Amino acid sequence: MKIAVLGTGMVGRTIGGRLVGLGYQVMMGSRTADNEKATAWKAEHGAMASHGTFSNAAAFGEIIFNCTKGMHTLEILELAGRQNLSGKILVDVTNPLDFTKGFPPTLTVCNDNSLGEQIQTAFPEIRVVKTLNTMTCSLMVDPNLIHKGEHHVFMCGNDDSAKKDVSKILMEFGWKTDNILDLGDITNSRGTEMFLPLWVRLMPVVGSTVFQIQLVK
Amino acid sequence: MKIAVLGTGMVGRTIGGRLVGLGYQVMMGSRTADNEKATAWKAEHGAMASHGTFSNAAAFGEIIFNCTKGMHTLEILELAGRQNLSGKILVDVTNPLDFTKGFPPTLTVCNDNSLGEQIQTAFPEIRVVKTLNTMTCSLMVDPNLIHKGEHHVFMCGNDDSAKKDVSKILMEFGWKTDNILDLGDITNSRGTEMFLPLWVRLMPVVGSTVFQIQLVK
Repeated sequence: MKIAVLGTGMVGRTIGGRLVGLGYQVMMGSRTADNEKATAWKAEHGAMASHGTFSNAAAFGEIIFNCTKGMHTLEILELAGRQNLSGKILVDVTNPLDFTKGFPPTLTVCNDNSLGEQIQTAFPEIRVVKTLNTMTCSLMVDPNLIHKGEHHVFMCGNDDSAKKDVSKILMEFGWKTDNILDLGDITNSRGTEMFLPLWVRLMPVVGSTVFQIQLVK
Repeated sequence: MKIAVLGTGMVGRTIGGRLVGLGYQVMMGSRTADNEKATAWKAEHGAMASHGTFSNAAAFGEIIFNCTKGMHTLEILELAGRQNLSGKILVDVTNPLDFTKGFPPTLTVCNDNSLGEQIQTAFPEIRVVKTLNTMTCSLMVDPNLIHKGEHHVFMCGNDDSAKKDVSKILMEFGWKTDNILDLGDITNSRGTEMFLPLWVRLMPVVGSTVFQIQLVK
């Protein structure tokens, strides 16, 4: 299967690399076809990896991972092209973090709306699945790095069949079925995105980005 | 030691009862001295329990637990009386939840401010410690109810000595030192209050209010 990764940051490179390792053909998309980070990433990952513009990548992928910065996501999806995205699954791992006023960041949208919902509203033809956005990227793609993989990932979206397909990829990443929690429709993005202000404050207390939450009862 | 509990809801009654059980003298405060729930609570808990107006309770307590509804907290603290609260520790376990538009609730304040900060700003003479607001009240006062007590409670506030005193009460409730995480100053209320939109959506997925988060690394 062909997968597009939009964004060349650490999240995009990590997810893209892991997907190549799992045998997927992956195209990384960025603003310019000759983006340096994308070129280096392609060189590292070989024949199954490629790169191009956001539009090239969106046209290539059957599933699209949104690994752009949340503040720029809506603009970038327009660049990727509505016709290239139509009917496809968009796995949205992004948070609407605004670092323009320094640390701690605020959210560009929250409370009665969310980035996940903004994407779904602006692009009703996309099947948006919000997931993985509550942890650092090394854990997204390899939950067994810590605590024997016993911690939780949240998922939400309006399309059950899309969530099922995304769950399969999460399981390939190493997530156990019981630890993938489907919260319901895309409005649940509010909750998972609003976890970030706590996450960024926990980071210095834990002393690492490599931590996760396990629900216990 | 004398402790005041402001609010007669389930949170106030649970915390008040637990404090009486630990040997504290507890006065529950409400809008009217003859509040039915406070009267019933006093009858249940005997000689160490009493009740009165918000003002009576605030004057009585050396430490004050804020168990009011977040939407009404600032107004109630005015009723409790600035002179009765001055210099005292206020343990704020409340969230600024707004259910007026149904479920899921929104927050009355978030992102670049929080209820904890609003209280501290409106009442600079109070030593506000925000804690316990990320879980159901049965777990606040008895963490060992689940998972052998191995899950986390957050705390923040500007006054280190106040946080130390509140930590002692949390330990009497059963919290282990290592599981009490001091996030820093009162601005960290933003993160813990903004966890609530996720909490309320997790509740139906978990099928219970009696769950908690354990940080794992």
